[in-house]
Amino acid sequence: MTIRVAIAGARGKMGQEAVHTVMKNAEMELVAVLDYKDIGATLGDTDIFPDSYDVPVFTDMEEMHDAAEPHVLVDLTSPEAVYKHTKKALELNIRPVVGTTGFSDDELKELARLSEDTGVGCIIAPNFAVGAVLMMKFAEQAAKYLPDIEIIEMHHDQKLDAPSGTAMKTAHLISSHRQTHEQGHVHEKETLEGARGANYDGMRIHSVRLPGLVAHQQVLLGGEGQLLTIRHDSFNRGSFMSGVVLSIKTVIKTEKLIYGLEHIID
Amino acid sequence: MTIRVAIAGARGKMGQEAVHTVMKNAEMELVAVLDYKDIGATLGDTDIFPDSYDVPVFTDMEEMHDAAEPHVLVDLTSPEAVYKHTKKALELNIRPVVGTTGFSDDELKELARLSEDTGVGCIIAPNFAVGAVLMMKFAEQAAKYLPDIEIIEMHHDQKLDAPSGTAMKTAHLISSHRQTHEQGHVHEKETLEGARGANYDGMRIHSVRLPGLVAHQQVLLGGEGQLLTIRHDSFNRGSFMSGVVLSIKTVIKTEKLIYGLEHIID
Amino acid sequence: MTIRVAIAGARGKMGQEAVHTVMKNAEMELVAVLDYKDIGATLGDTDIFPDSYDVPVFTDMEEMHDAAEPHVLVDLTSPEAVYKHTKKALELNIRPVVGTTGFSDDELKELARLSEDTGVGCIIAPNFAVGAVLMMKFAEQAAKYLPDIEIIEMHHDQKLDAPSGTAMKTAHLISSHRQTHEQGHVHEKETLEGARGANYDGMRIHSVRLPGLVAHQQVLLGGEGQLLTIRHDSFNRGSFMSGVVLSIKTVIKTEKLIYGLEHIID
Amino acid sequence: MTIRVAIAGARGKMGQEAVHTVMKNAEMELVAVLDYKDIGATLGDTDIFPDSYDVPVFTDMEEMHDAAEPHVLVDLTSPEAVYKHTKKALELNIRPVVGTTGFSDDELKELARLSEDTGVGCIIAPNFAVGAVLMMKFAEQAAKYLPDIEIIEMHHDQKLDAPSGTAMKTAHLISSHRQTHEQGHVHEKETLEGARGANYDGMRIHSVRLPGLVAHQQVLLGGEGQLLTIRHDSFNRGSFMSGVVLSIKTVIKTEKLIYGLEHIID
Repeated sequence: MTIRVAIAGARGKMGQEAVHTVMKNAEMELVAVLDYKDIGATLGDTDIFPDSYDVPVFTDMEEMHDAAEPHVLVDLTSPEAVYKHTKKALELNIRPVVGTTGFSDDELKELARLSEDTGVGCIIAPNFAVGAVLMMKFAEQAAKYLPDIEIIEMHHDQKLDAPSGTAMKTAHLISSHRQTHEQGHVHEKETLEGARGANYDGMRIHSVRLPGLVAHQQVLLGGEGQLLTIRHDSFNRGSFMSGVVLSIKTVIKTEKLIYGLEHIID
Repeated sequence: MTIRVAIAGARGKMGQEAVHTVMKNAEMELVAVLDYKDIGATLGDTDIFPDSYDVPVFTDMEEMHDAAEPHVLVDLTSPEAVYKHTKKALELNIRPVVGTTGFSDDELKELARLSEDTGVGCIIAPNFAVGAVLMMKFAEQAAKYLPDIEIIEMHHDQKLDAPSGTAMKTAHLISSHRQTHEQGHVHEKETLEGARGANYDGMRIHSVRLPGLVAHQQVLLGGEGQLLTIRHDSFNRGSFMSGVVLSIKTVIKTEKLIYGLEHIID
Repeated sequence: MTIRVAIAGARGKMGQEAVHTVMKNAEMELVAVLDYKDIGATLGDTDIFPDSYDVPVFTDMEEMHDAAEPHVLVDLTSPEAVYKHTKKALELNIRPVVGTTGFSDDELKELARLSEDTGVGCIIAPNFAVGAVLMMKFAEQAAKYLPDIEIIEMHHDQKLDAPSGTAMKTAHLISSHRQTHEQGHVHEKETLEGARGANYDGMRIHSVRLPGLVAHQQVLLGGEGQLLTIRHDSFNRGSFMSGVVLSIKTVIKTEKLIYGLEHIID
Repeated sequence: MTIRVAIAGARGKMGQEAVHTVMKNAEMELVAVLDYKDIGATLGDTDIFPDSYDVPVFTDMEEMHDAAEPHVLVDLTSPEAVYKHTKKALELNIRPVVGTTGFSDDELKELARLSEDTGVGCIIAPNFAVGAVLMMKFAEQAAKYLPDIEIIEMHHDQKLDAPSGTAMKTAHLISSHRQTHEQGHVHEKETLEGARGANYDGMRIHSVRLPGLVAHQQVLLGGEGQLLTIRHDSFNRGSFMSGVVLSIKTVIKTEKLIYGLEHIID
């Protein structure tokens, strides 16, 4: 069966990648795009896609549902629109695949309840990069055997916050699998403040910021005579597409809400 | 309960490390060593251990069993002696932890049968480095999602064979989880022979040999826009001790033969 | 003094980067572009640059010279056009900065002679990535002290040739600074053909090809108890812009032809 | 000419390595060792060297000079003894190669003066690892072209101070070749204190401490679209021997005091 896919947010940076990805995938068909304003009859009418992309554009989800009959809605729009979209899609029996993190706990609970009641599957993923999710899973598993851990994350120098969200999430996951213990020598001393990085439950996190870098993280796990390193490099937005494809294929067989790619990767 | 441990091969390089490791471990007691010749009444009589290591030495396993009552026998002797030792230990209700690879298939079958019949657990591990085993497990798991894989293994330049045994085993494990496919461009061309490395089921393996190196391996898994790297560095023999300790703790609760550390790591 | 720059090949991938780079650089002014066909009165008339880029377009170099008076011509066109351009520029007292490798030895000699006769400087660089050129220089210097060397280059899996041109050039430069010697154990044996990589003068070169990768190279230099690694990652075309800027600033003070960025980096 | 070498501190950890290194080197002969107490007639009388090491032991440098006629004294003793030794050696026309850092500025000045007056060369090196010295030199050179720099140093978790001495020295050398500038985004914010590491003149230094690690450092230099990494791994004490050998060969042709291996590496 070919999976009939609709995309919301097709003209954004992530959306453009998703459009090309679905168009190239033999197991899927892009049957519609949803936009907040009229951008022409088909995607090909915009100047960012080739004329041959004659995918119909809708501004109303019900109309889209009736005309294009999508199985899945990939939603890459802003946090503001996405809750309304997801709720509506579930009601219309379109399975949502959502890539934003901007849901409140109440909203998530409501969507989970709706998904369960209707039996319409839904996947919400704060991080679509399969490799990054695998890195976090492996770090979590390995921490049981090699509990001395430091994280080095490296990003371009325009990033505002340190540590990165992925580093924080990794540390959080690991900390649930190891007993808190302070690392390093008990009499360790910083002769320059900050050298030993940020302290998360005894683990250390180091944030490198340099022009040229994209998004990179390594988790270092040390043991007597050995070092295990799990590293993920994200070179461009394409890294998210593996997770989008996996989510589309999985949501179609799912009858409840799944939050986080780690729950569909085993 | 303190685990009562005996060691065979205590004077070898691995054996010495194992002796120190068990002596320092609060959950274990080194109650005996087994040697093929008389080396004095206690370990402390040799010139490689401190006088304070007053662990009795035996040349006969039955005598050792009666006098020292070990729960576990860690066997780090040569392939020649190890089969006989392991069989005897199982018969005497001493649980063997064995670090050599030199068993024939017939011998392994016989030991597995004996272990099952007696209910005396036994762990045989070709590689005791927990980090290396984790690397292999993770590579195997990740191959399902990122099936384009190359392995770079790096060793000191006195190593005779390329690729290393660990690289071959890693490739073998991965190949059971991915469909065979040739990697690289179909029209790819080596202008210098060998540049693209060894071809194992479509995957490429590269063997680096340099003075100074010890034993290192990285598995690279590439996907659109991303790279996942799983790397293990073994800096010295100490890297094996984590696996020895884990095996001792596990074998005591085991009632059959387990081959490979990967089956006791989850 | 503001350097007046003209660019040939502005609409190509490298050319676009160069246009933005010069526009943003406070020490330079983009005074003209040279195109092989009429693309409108200014760069802003094309749909790849913003309207505000009101840089005049010329199809004739003499006209461009008279009207725009550029000091430097950055030429990023195809190998076919570039020789003619460079010769003409030298005659018109415009200093060429050229990023293609397609010159024959005879053409290079002719251009060098012309540059020397006229005193009009010229820089031709097969590789504009300053970091890559530094990597090669450092590897060459270090080989004197750590003569056991292996090169690992890693590129996307659409690359046709292995090893890469940069790896071959690196090996060539190193080989002029170390005595030929076969590396690895004399009795070393490949159990899988190709594992030890390509043999260049005794050094080994390994070519990794994976989707997701861009252009990466590391040179590993091993010595007793130590490893020195010099690595360059090129994440996108922007990596060449540092070399373009450096060349523009250097050519203005130069009165002969310089081939290779390594001769202007010290 | 075979270089006649004497070693002070032969029984220490570094000293033992140096003894083996000189014994194996075809261009050198170990003609004497200097010890502070009587340890027997030859090195072979101790239990740390084989009987075949029949190198005479002296407790008085003048006696050693008259009997063994060494050209070079490699001094690997404690800071307390080393100044006296070095002074005496210079007076006796034995060229000192010294591996400790414990000289005061006044002592260094005095030794430099004495060396210059007598024309007896002397090399004092705080770090004998040739690879580490090359790393520092290259980082210093590259900083001119890629001035955005972060240093990650990694050591075993028994190290007391952070950052390491080598990291501080590297940063110091680099800072003399780049204008001070704060790196990262001006509005960058640490959500966990210390994440961005130590600030040295705008550069960031990160100190990783894990069991299993030995001594490792990488210098990362980022530019638009690219990253240059210079990394040194020291796996064991053997890494210092390359510098000892180089110093012995160099001091014999030297007629003044040289401080730092970087001045004999070009």
